[in-house]
Amino acid sequence: MYSGNIFSLVRPSMNALDIFMQAQVEQFEPEIRSMAKYCLETSGKRLRPTLVFITGWQESGHVVGDLVRLAGVIEMVHLATLVHDDIMDHAEIRRNRRTASREFGPDAAVLLGDTLFCQALHIASHFPTTEVCRMVSESTRRVCAGEIMQTMRRRDMEITLADYQRVIDLKTAELFRISCLMGAMIGGQNAGFTEAANDFGRHLGIAYQMYDDLVDFLGEEKSVGKTLGTDLATGKLTLPLMCLLEKLSGQERNELLSAMREGRDLPLAVSVERMKVLGIASEVARSIDDELAKARSALTGHESCAPVELMRGLTDLLQTQVQDLNVKGTDD
Amino acid sequence: MYSGNIFSLVRPSMNALDIFMQAQVEQFEPEIRSMAKYCLETSGKRLRPTLVFITGWQESGHVVGDLVRLAGVIEMVHLATLVHDDIMDHAEIRRNRRTASREFGPDAAVLLGDTLFCQALHIASHFPTTEVCRMVSESTRRVCAGEIMQTMRRRDMEITLADYQRVIDLKTAELFRISCLMGAMIGGQNAGFTEAANDFGRHLGIAYQMYDDLVDFLGEEKSVGKTLGTDLATGKLTLPLMCLLEKLSGQERNELLSAMREGRDLPLAVSVERMKVLGIASEVARSIDDELAKARSALTGHESCAPVELMRGLTDLLQTQVQDLNVKGTDD
Repeated sequence: MYSGNIFSLVRPSMNALDIFMQAQVEQFEPEIRSMAKYCLETSGKRLRPTLVFITGWQESGHVVGDLVRLAGVIEMVHLATLVHDDIMDHAEIRRNRRTASREFGPDAAVLLGDTLFCQALHIASHFPTTEVCRMVSESTRRVCAGEIMQTMRRRDMEITLADYQRVIDLKTAELFRISCLMGAMIGGQNAGFTEAANDFGRHLGIAYQMYDDLVDFLGEEKSVGKTLGTDLATGKLTLPLMCLLEKLSGQERNELLSAMREGRDLPLAVSVERMKVLGIASEVARSIDDELAKARSALTGHESCAPVELMRGLTDLLQTQVQDLNVKGTDD
Repeated sequence: MYSGNIFSLVRPSMNALDIFMQAQVEQFEPEIRSMAKYCLETSGKRLRPTLVFITGWQESGHVVGDLVRLAGVIEMVHLATLVHDDIMDHAEIRRNRRTASREFGPDAAVLLGDTLFCQALHIASHFPTTEVCRMVSESTRRVCAGEIMQTMRRRDMEITLADYQRVIDLKTAELFRISCLMGAMIGGQNAGFTEAANDFGRHLGIAYQMYDDLVDFLGEEKSVGKTLGTDLATGKLTLPLMCLLEKLSGQERNELLSAMREGRDLPLAVSVERMKVLGIASEVARSIDDELAKARSALTGHESCAPVELMRGLTDLLQTQVQDLNVKGTDD
């Protein structure tokens, strides 16, 4: 299992991406350059570029210029969605610094996000064919559609598991999916593996969003009564909350639902103790494991392709992180 | 001079565009389709499509599918910018119905505008080469950059004429310019005319924005003290206001400036009577005429190209509209 050194393997490509992103700042109009720079300089986890570099991986380990450019396109789309998300969530801080919305005001942030989307598509248009543009523009539309569904149903407690799955499939799994599909494509992998990478990316994306929702939920629970978790505070119905609601008695359930609907402080039903007893974290972990199993099984039969071991390593990494959380959520 | 029948000449293309735009609704995710439909169903003036059809005009008068698609791309980008503009301006009504921001809330409107941008670029990616994507994504970034500059300097009364020109060059002239450039290109016109069409579009766009600012300003002045003009209310420094400020005495000037800075009701300096005496409308009309003259002169030497007479007809139409306004502004 690679796990430990996946990130050192892709580091040369990631360094090239840093240089590429810095150079992009110059492409913006001089008057908005410093604002664009602010948005591009986030020290994010760069998950999507990692997927591009891994699925496009060849034994040689050379930095491939086209993969760097593709990673830049997808990361810039992702950063644009973050700029717009933070407006909606009234988020003040992301990754230890002020959000663009807080720094420049929500109005400028709307337009700034737009310029990032445009520039991402502009880079995409420099590939020799229209394929990258076509896929990225369609995926981005799907990401935004997922965000719209989520936004329109805030504080709507009638959401089903199917609704939740549809939203995360669009808002998160979509960019994971095309990162893997196009990474493989541009990296020159064979057609069968490219298709497998597409499915892998989608399931990994779903698993990752469930993990992210669990982090938000458990992270919160530690300081219940002080600050609400972003998702709880903004009335988003996520998987851990759905699991909790299912396990509560009728009265507790109603109390929690009406507190969320009205944006009030949450009742004691959402407490560290109750989570442990009810085993919420382990239930969500099981759903995540299911998705990771699907991601892994998409790779079956493609073991001879260079990226497969790295891709499996990524699923192992996520699984370990979920286990760590789960321990925290049950025995902390 | 064509003027009168320009619009009947392009009507078959415009009808094809209507059908094309309606069909686009199906491309959006089912859950957001009705919202996308709402945004696409605006009964706007369709100026940019008109420019596409006119500059791509051939003697045959046939409806050209690629021109319809190009017009659809540019109109959809324009509609997306309107959705985002209306959030910023807190506009409730546009073209006699509620804005998307008012109808679905500002958060959903941010994302809805994003999906329109994405879909526009997605259509653009269906041309055989990446050229349309490349031009449209770059232009759209420039439009948004212009809007950012305007947004960041609201209620900033230090703006110079050069700043104003730069903003309208980006936020308005840019899409006029590429409508003409790409209309000519996709319409199969010769290279010399295509370049001329580019310059024509830019100057026509600048002239149009000045006209639009004058309409906002004079339209307002009629009901001064009741509702403020959008531009005045949102503290945008436009050409007519700059002309007014230049002609006012020191004290009146300061009163007006501080009222605008603080978003208070405007002093009497902005009244119908004062406009007449000061001749604001005719001064702005002179600037518009200068731009229209530049637009016309870009066409010199290309008289043998089919669109030239129609393009001149468009400048004549705008000039007539400005004269009508000017009469209203001085002798009403």
